[in-house]
Amino acid sequence: MDPESVSKAFVEHYYTTFDANRAGLAGLYQDTSMLSFEGEKIQGGSAIVTKLTSLPFQQCKHNISTVDSQPSGPAGGMLVFVSGNLQLAGEQHVLKFSQMFHLMPTPQGSFYVQNDIFRLNYA
Amino acid sequence: MDPESVSKAFVEHYYTTFDANRAGLAGLYQDTSMLSFEGEKIQGGSAIVTKLTSLPFQQCKHNISTVDSQPSGPAGGMLVFVSGNLQLAGEQHVLKFSQMFHLMPTPQGSFYVQNDIFRLNYA
Repeated sequence: MDPESVSKAFVEHYYTTFDANRAGLAGLYQDTSMLSFEGEKIQGGSAIVTKLTSLPFQQCKHNISTVDSQPSGPAGGMLVFVSGNLQLAGEQHVLKFSQMFHLMPTPQGSFYVQNDIFRLNYA
Repeated sequence: MDPESVSKAFVEHYYTTFDANRAGLAGLYQDTSMLSFEGEKIQGGSAIVTKLTSLPFQQCKHNISTVDSQPSGPAGGMLVFVSGNLQLAGEQHVLKFSQMFHLMPTPQGSFYVQNDIFRLNYA
């Protein structure tokens, strides 16, 4: 797959999993992975999934507006930059967000999330 | 300097230069650098600076809201994720934006911008 297709497929998979079964994101992170969530830094796949599954809402729906991607360097990584909005169950208004991922290749030919930075864009 | 200080100093330098002397950004990019500007992909420092200096406004002022940073991997790179707003000369309203940079170390102990992705966040 070309890089654009990889990043679009990743984004589709990530947010579908987030919205349907957040614990299922565990397979996308590894021990070295890092998350910055609204300025809070969390390291390691296990701690990251604990954070994501303990966010103070049960159901949500991400809608993606833009996806940009670039190769990150000779190690085969890929940077994916996403903007969109997020609707929480029972809330009428949406929250705008931006998020970036640094995907690194696995020996199995897939990718994991090495870096993940998430910010809400307050109006 | 620790990574947080490096990224804050970079952000301060980048936007001060952008607002005061956009052509001066040339020193921050190299031939391998990539920019995605509102979805348009531009490669190479020279083409990137041509793009930035030909944007259809002369003066602008960036105001930074958040800066997040993480190391990008063993090669010594750093990811910097910025949100803020942008005011163009003669315009009263501000434009919200998000931007990410992947900084890579130079042999001289400084950093250059390997990856740059910019998006306006439309309301």
